[in-house]
Amino acid sequence: MRLRNKPWAADLIAENPDMILVSPENIASNWQSRFAKEQPIYIEVGSGKGQFITQMAQKYPDRNFIAVEIQESAIAVILQKQVELKLPNLQLLLGNGAALTTFFAENEVAGVYLNFSDPWPKTRHEKRRLTYKSFLAEYQQIMQPTGYLRFKTDNQGLFEYSLASLNAYGMVFDDISLDLHNSDLAEDNIQTEYEEKFSKRGQVIYRLEAHYK
Amino acid sequence: MRLRNKPWAADLIAENPDMILVSPENIASNWQSRFAKEQPIYIEVGSGKGQFITQMAQKYPDRNFIAVEIQESAIAVILQKQVELKLPNLQLLLGNGAALTTFFAENEVAGVYLNFSDPWPKTRHEKRRLTYKSFLAEYQQIMQPTGYLRFKTDNQGLFEYSLASLNAYGMVFDDISLDLHNSDLAEDNIQTEYEEKFSKRGQVIYRLEAHYK
Repeated sequence: MRLRNKPWAADLIAENPDMILVSPENIASNWQSRFAKEQPIYIEVGSGKGQFITQMAQKYPDRNFIAVEIQESAIAVILQKQVELKLPNLQLLLGNGAALTTFFAENEVAGVYLNFSDPWPKTRHEKRRLTYKSFLAEYQQIMQPTGYLRFKTDNQGLFEYSLASLNAYGMVFDDISLDLHNSDLAEDNIQTEYEEKFSKRGQVIYRLEAHYK
Repeated sequence: MRLRNKPWAADLIAENPDMILVSPENIASNWQSRFAKEQPIYIEVGSGKGQFITQMAQKYPDRNFIAVEIQESAIAVILQKQVELKLPNLQLLLGNGAALTTFFAENEVAGVYLNFSDPWPKTRHEKRRLTYKSFLAEYQQIMQPTGYLRFKTDNQGLFEYSLASLNAYGMVFDDISLDLHNSDLAEDNIQTEYEEKFSKRGQVIYRLEAHYK
């Protein structure tokens, strides 16, 4: 979802270099130095306005989180919150999800979250879907062998595609839910802004968790 | 679904040895001899009252079909129809789906259909689910390398389980639909009795197609 341009975004980002990095070229393998404590790092690719990653950071203080978002006007909203909250275990990264292997070293990440990613429904846009094989290869490269990929969406076509794509890549499914909000995982589920809105309208939410062999 | 006992079933079966076999021990590798023409053989494991397999046989005269069903009172209903229809490309097998490797030789089967199989929702009954790994191994043993497994269900838990089970077995997904009746495959879809009834009530039907690596 594209957000309206925010004229104040660039200034806010420039003023908070301790909280956010912009397409950094020398941070790979040094992310722990930006957190208060050295603890496992989880990233969300496509954080939007950041409700999910911010609440995750609050709920799990013993983990470090990084919000990766390509839209300046979206990550600026997360940054606004973080300027208030000053969560010691949350960092922001304005950059392209297709360049993750530039931003992170091998084994630097303990888990990857994808939430309500753009479905790119046209076949010719398949390569842009965040569960396309080139992205799966990226996540694999930066993730520890014990790491997991967790993916939520309300988009039926994207979920069908993703099941097949992860399967073809050789990933192992640890959990699949075809109705997350009526499953055992509902209680612990932290929702995105989008998820809250659409599940209230009765839209089913799909979820999968998988790891690399 | 267990059907009421049919006192006439045993007699009808005994009277039609050209149409139905009962737990046969010497038919493996000789199924083609029971059909009018030698053509690829597709089996349905758990045919119930047989609407699906009968209509498939009518729709695809260039394929041979075998209805496998463990319940005498169910397969007797299929046999009743077949006594009327005398489809040259349909055979019936009263026997246990767990003994498929007794009934069929390696490579004898071109495809396996599972439709609305018993979900066996309790964890301790996992081994009875027709997508449990021991069944997947059976299908693999009797299926040609180019063969496919096609599975439909309205049971969310069984479908979630089956996606994970086939994936863990190393099978490759060729197609996944989380709403078959609103997909491109709907037009060609032949319904079971159960499917007709429950999809009319608005129940979503899941479908997957997969092959062995």
